[in-house]
Amino acid sequence: MIVLPADRLRALGTAIFSAQGAPRDKAELVADTLVEASLTGHDSHGVRYFVRYSDRIRRGLVDVGAEPVVVKETASSALVDGRWAFGQVTALRVMELAAEKAEAHVVGAAGAYNCNHVGRVGYYTAWAARRGLVAMMFVNVGNQVVAIHGGLGRVFGTNPLSAAAPAGDAGPFLIDYATSVVAQGKVTIAGAENERIPTHWTRDKLGRLTDDPGDLADGGWLLPFGGHKGYCLQLLVELMGAVMTGSRSGLDPVGEPPSPNGVFAVAIDPEGFVGREAFKKRAEKVFQGVKTTTPEPGGRVLIPGEPEWETRERRLREGVPLPEETWRQITELAEEIGIDPRLYSAR
Amino acid sequence: MIVLPADRLRALGTAIFSAQGAPRDKAELVADTLVEASLTGHDSHGVRYFVRYSDRIRRGLVDVGAEPVVVKETASSALVDGRWAFGQVTALRVMELAAEKAEAHVVGAAGAYNCNHVGRVGYYTAWAARRGLVAMMFVNVGNQVVAIHGGLGRVFGTNPLSAAAPAGDAGPFLIDYATSVVAQGKVTIAGAENERIPTHWTRDKLGRLTDDPGDLADGGWLLPFGGHKGYCLQLLVELMGAVMTGSRSGLDPVGEPPSPNGVFAVAIDPEGFVGREAFKKRAEKVFQGVKTTTPEPGGRVLIPGEPEWETRERRLREGVPLPEETWRQITELAEEIGIDPRLYSAR
Repeated sequence: MIVLPADRLRALGTAIFSAQGAPRDKAELVADTLVEASLTGHDSHGVRYFVRYSDRIRRGLVDVGAEPVVVKETASSALVDGRWAFGQVTALRVMELAAEKAEAHVVGAAGAYNCNHVGRVGYYTAWAARRGLVAMMFVNVGNQVVAIHGGLGRVFGTNPLSAAAPAGDAGPFLIDYATSVVAQGKVTIAGAENERIPTHWTRDKLGRLTDDPGDLADGGWLLPFGGHKGYCLQLLVELMGAVMTGSRSGLDPVGEPPSPNGVFAVAIDPEGFVGREAFKKRAEKVFQGVKTTTPEPGGRVLIPGEPEWETRERRLREGVPLPEETWRQITELAEEIGIDPRLYSAR
Repeated sequence: MIVLPADRLRALGTAIFSAQGAPRDKAELVADTLVEASLTGHDSHGVRYFVRYSDRIRRGLVDVGAEPVVVKETASSALVDGRWAFGQVTALRVMELAAEKAEAHVVGAAGAYNCNHVGRVGYYTAWAARRGLVAMMFVNVGNQVVAIHGGLGRVFGTNPLSAAAPAGDAGPFLIDYATSVVAQGKVTIAGAENERIPTHWTRDKLGRLTDDPGDLADGGWLLPFGGHKGYCLQLLVELMGAVMTGSRSGLDPVGEPPSPNGVFAVAIDPEGFVGREAFKKRAEKVFQGVKTTTPEPGGRVLIPGEPEWETRERRLREGVPLPEETWRQITELAEEIGIDPRLYSAR
């Protein structure tokens, strides 16, 4: 493992995307979302994407200078054509629109199509929660890798779901997960680290139980979490992310880009209900009650978002650990585009 | 089992609630929601509630003539004081408000406090889907019976979640479930029928594995579904249903009524996004794709809402089966309040 300070990684990422033509603000946003994913422990969506996004830029799949545009709008809603800008730029625009409309009229909804990979979805909902709003985001992935409940084969993407809310000293509350048992990246990482995986994560290409992470890439599939109840959410995300926005469904023919995201956000201002201050205090009280619950023997009671927050605090202090192979790929990329990675790796 | 036609049960329920002072329209609505629950196979939320609600009316917990009132409103949102009317009256009002606002401004949100038991939540979201909207409803139950993930003891109610969407010939799409592994009523019914239950449903009062449904009433608890991912939804429902509306949280001191519901609904008009017709066609196509998936050996691929729809068709033809004990309690109640149940039980 290589360990690097987050601010250096942020500066390196910004330099990498700037060198490939991205305007400064967009390069900074994309780098920040990826470093935040690494800081919060979501390494599968972290700085290793410096390389993957650069590859997509070179293949012409990301228009680094593009601005998403609103194509349909009401006082409370907006539909956005992402114009194949960075997915991060589109997703943040969608959440900003939902938030602005919620602040004006208590509830706002926005969606986007022609949207590249948006990265870690919790980035956008947590952004809205810091503004005092409750936010939900549904992101379909137009790339088949997850089976449906009771069926064989790949049908949908990992279709993540996120929700966040302010919660005073007990928060922020943050849900951010794939509706598959795990995100695809977690299987990839297990493979890179030669680890076995639990048998309820995937099936091999014949539908058999397996603990070999390699079987996923070899025609296997992920399972939805929680049986038929998780399957319901997998479909709800497909309806909101793809059907509602006009984005590519997992069931549509595969095309370019390989993993487009359909994005849909809802933001709610508690001021229209119990009030902002009351919401924060009441949420804090609920989570304080949860934290005083007796844990199962040997266990621990966690608030959603708490593990991410703890990891973030630790990695801000101690640095972000990267597998040597990830760092090798990043430095190779940097050198190719004329950036000296050593300027960013000194502690 | 006694088997009775749905229309007779609906008329009997209407007579039962009318005889206890409910205005005709409210008695009809409450009876209809309970008969619909029985028709769709959700017997735990079905006509056995004729008796339970009557008991609550006699205890002064339901104000049978009350009208919920809007206490805070914007063009896109409304907060409702349910004034301890029938929960059904309040929940339908909340969904109507969200739907009207969505039809005017694409998205609408509404919530309610001082709300009695609303019954089967899917009734309200399915109502909105028949109007062409996508709807979600979050209902917290202020009555501790479900543990949190990783913790011992009862913390929250079963906190159901529902979502529905129009889907052309492949729908309606309907999610309607407790965020516990199962609804409390399913354990009660297993107990009444002397059946064992799976060991991932409940724990006994000491936190031990059990397959005895009686252990739940004896200080045990239900588990949230799907591990930490279902736990996240259990908390999201608590935030929307209780924290946002000002309703009683599972963590607040127990009081009367025993199981108040905090209700929060969001409705979205696809017309503001891909368009109503396109949404229906695209959803239909997704679900047709899902239905052509090869099922697991011996299994079957189902669209959420399909089992309910099938059961409803069958029970409309063949009648609603009721355990003899349930029918005995209903007839006893009817006779007490001067209704001749034989008028309603002939086929």
